[in-house]
Amino acid sequence: MSKAKEVKNTAGLRGMTAGQTSVSTVGKEGVGLTYRGYDIGELADKATFEEVAYLLLYGKLPTTVELANYKARLRGFRGLPAALKTVLEQIPASAHPMDVMRTGCSVLGTLEPELSFAQEHDIADRLLSAFPAILSYWYRFANHGQRIDTYTDEDSIAGHFLAMLHGKKPHELHVKCMDASLILYAEHEFNASTFTCRVCASTLSDFYSTITAGIGTLRGPLHGGANEAAMELIQRFRTPEQAKQGLLDALERKDKIMGFGHAVYSTSDPRNTVIKAWSKKLSVEMGDPENLYPISEAIEKVMWDEKKLFPNLDFFSASAYHFMGIDTPLFTPIFVISRITGWAAHVMEQRANNRIIRPSAEYIGEEKRSFVEIDKR
Amino acid sequence: MSKAKEVKNTAGLRGMTAGQTSVSTVGKEGVGLTYRGYDIGELADKATFEEVAYLLLYGKLPTTVELANYKARLRGFRGLPAALKTVLEQIPASAHPMDVMRTGCSVLGTLEPELSFAQEHDIADRLLSAFPAILSYWYRFANHGQRIDTYTDEDSIAGHFLAMLHGKKPHELHVKCMDASLILYAEHEFNASTFTCRVCASTLSDFYSTITAGIGTLRGPLHGGANEAAMELIQRFRTPEQAKQGLLDALERKDKIMGFGHAVYSTSDPRNTVIKAWSKKLSVEMGDPENLYPISEAIEKVMWDEKKLFPNLDFFSASAYHFMGIDTPLFTPIFVISRITGWAAHVMEQRANNRIIRPSAEYIGEEKRSFVEIDKR
Repeated sequence: MSKAKEVKNTAGLRGMTAGQTSVSTVGKEGVGLTYRGYDIGELADKATFEEVAYLLLYGKLPTTVELANYKARLRGFRGLPAALKTVLEQIPASAHPMDVMRTGCSVLGTLEPELSFAQEHDIADRLLSAFPAILSYWYRFANHGQRIDTYTDEDSIAGHFLAMLHGKKPHELHVKCMDASLILYAEHEFNASTFTCRVCASTLSDFYSTITAGIGTLRGPLHGGANEAAMELIQRFRTPEQAKQGLLDALERKDKIMGFGHAVYSTSDPRNTVIKAWSKKLSVEMGDPENLYPISEAIEKVMWDEKKLFPNLDFFSASAYHFMGIDTPLFTPIFVISRITGWAAHVMEQRANNRIIRPSAEYIGEEKRSFVEIDKR
Repeated sequence: MSKAKEVKNTAGLRGMTAGQTSVSTVGKEGVGLTYRGYDIGELADKATFEEVAYLLLYGKLPTTVELANYKARLRGFRGLPAALKTVLEQIPASAHPMDVMRTGCSVLGTLEPELSFAQEHDIADRLLSAFPAILSYWYRFANHGQRIDTYTDEDSIAGHFLAMLHGKKPHELHVKCMDASLILYAEHEFNASTFTCRVCASTLSDFYSTITAGIGTLRGPLHGGANEAAMELIQRFRTPEQAKQGLLDALERKDKIMGFGHAVYSTSDPRNTVIKAWSKKLSVEMGDPENLYPISEAIEKVMWDEKKLFPNLDFFSASAYHFMGIDTPLFTPIFVISRITGWAAHVMEQRANNRIIRPSAEYIGEEKRSFVEIDKR
């Protein structure tokens, strides 16, 4: 009995300490979410994504000069090698965009390998600049046969990404909303993909391997795929009234509703306030012909009234991304474009104080048995 | 004080149960290593790699008919899509072969995606057949400009791989040694790469993502890279006497000697007996002009006499692979060609009884602090 209980409690390592971190902390009483001590709400409101990336990767908020230098450095990393473009052109339009991100990262590791851990900051910054280009290059080629230029005159990562993706200068409000979203998705402690990065890093593998592994882990519907599932739900309805009834029916059927509740937060997701305000702002100022914002609010109310479940970051991100003209399958890759910062910070932290992560298993299989020759089976 | 102690004990999750498995068990008293209950020594002696792959993936040893059908099925999976070949041709000869394996797996996931978990056995078998071809195609193209045929008339995976790699019919003894080596490397419980596969699988990500993550994790020198490091050590010496003195000097300098000791085994690695016998056999029957076998034995003796450390599977694998004419950088990719079986079995097991693996971290970073505007930093 006591053995079964022990196993139950360790399933998913929930609540078990698997290491130390100074990158962020999640859900501590009265603190919400902080990146290196700074509250996520304040960062999303007052900082830019590049400042937050610098904070996560270099441990402090940059001065004006440091930020200007950092942004110039990132702009210098925007190009993709010809061999990588050739690879991206081999991937069909039907592929999952997360498979494209995973492959792009892995290929870059063959072309610009990490030969020494002294390169880790260079590679983190390189991937931060390359991921928007990898996604946009493949997306535009696979869907429209266009070979895009991965240099734009957009100053920010948010603006650069939107300009490449849509082939035109992005609206200023869209750039600001994307920037805030990238800040919100940047880092979240020992979630499954970050933990994968750390297990991979703990064998002293190279930087690209750790991030490739993180992308593959984020891809799962129990992790990064939630905002896509939320979008599919919202788009089922035409009006808030229809959404209310539809949700009540879905709950009655015990359907799994994505974008609500959280493994760590118990009463609210501190990131929701920010992205919900952005979704509302875009809906009001730029138009919402599909009623997605009021439909989202109606769903939120039913989930709270019926299940006492709150929306997490993924829920209002869905409508916000849709308002910016982004196709639903690209939602999780945007998570990658942001989370590379948190993953990279954790890989560096793991390397700095490493022990190989090698847990044990409880064996529940066959007892030892004798081999049986093939003609006697 | 008690808190610091707790953290120390959880570093690397050493000895902590992270889940259940029926695939294999390692180092239990008197049992050594068993795959689904069968002793590794008996399997390496009496079974073929295809039988062991079937055992790991399908849970039982195959009958004569099942084995014949399974081998025919695997032969049918030997071809590579043209797009994958084009990708492999983009990767330079200077790339780490493990980066090639990681990329090949990721690309195949974009071309032949897993659309439903019902495909998991197909994809495991596909990768089992494709990995020798991915490695050989890239190796021969990058180094010799040759576009090889990935179909051969070799019946076994071991023979097929050696035939593709060297472009000629392999020696029978080499095929048998490679077959035994593939059995020995096939599975090893919750090691770091397998654990990575399971963390990735726990988000319900696709099969290719889990294996790609496993390859990236195996790549690290604290994990799969040990046989390469052992080879470099052995090749430093010309005679057993030189090796003895060289090792004593290295131990005096406190150099890290790879290929000895083990995270789980405390007195011996049950796989060493098998691979050591193969290394000796190849050395005696096919010639050992560099004295690698006696040099390896001399190193083994010093490590035991001086440090009471025993050789693990990686140590005599190095000379055995070298005797088969395999370049040292290809040693860890051979580990992948074998371990795909164990990884796949663990991914399926994780999926069958899943909870997302999401541990906690101990926060040791900055206390909550107020944001500082950029011009005041």
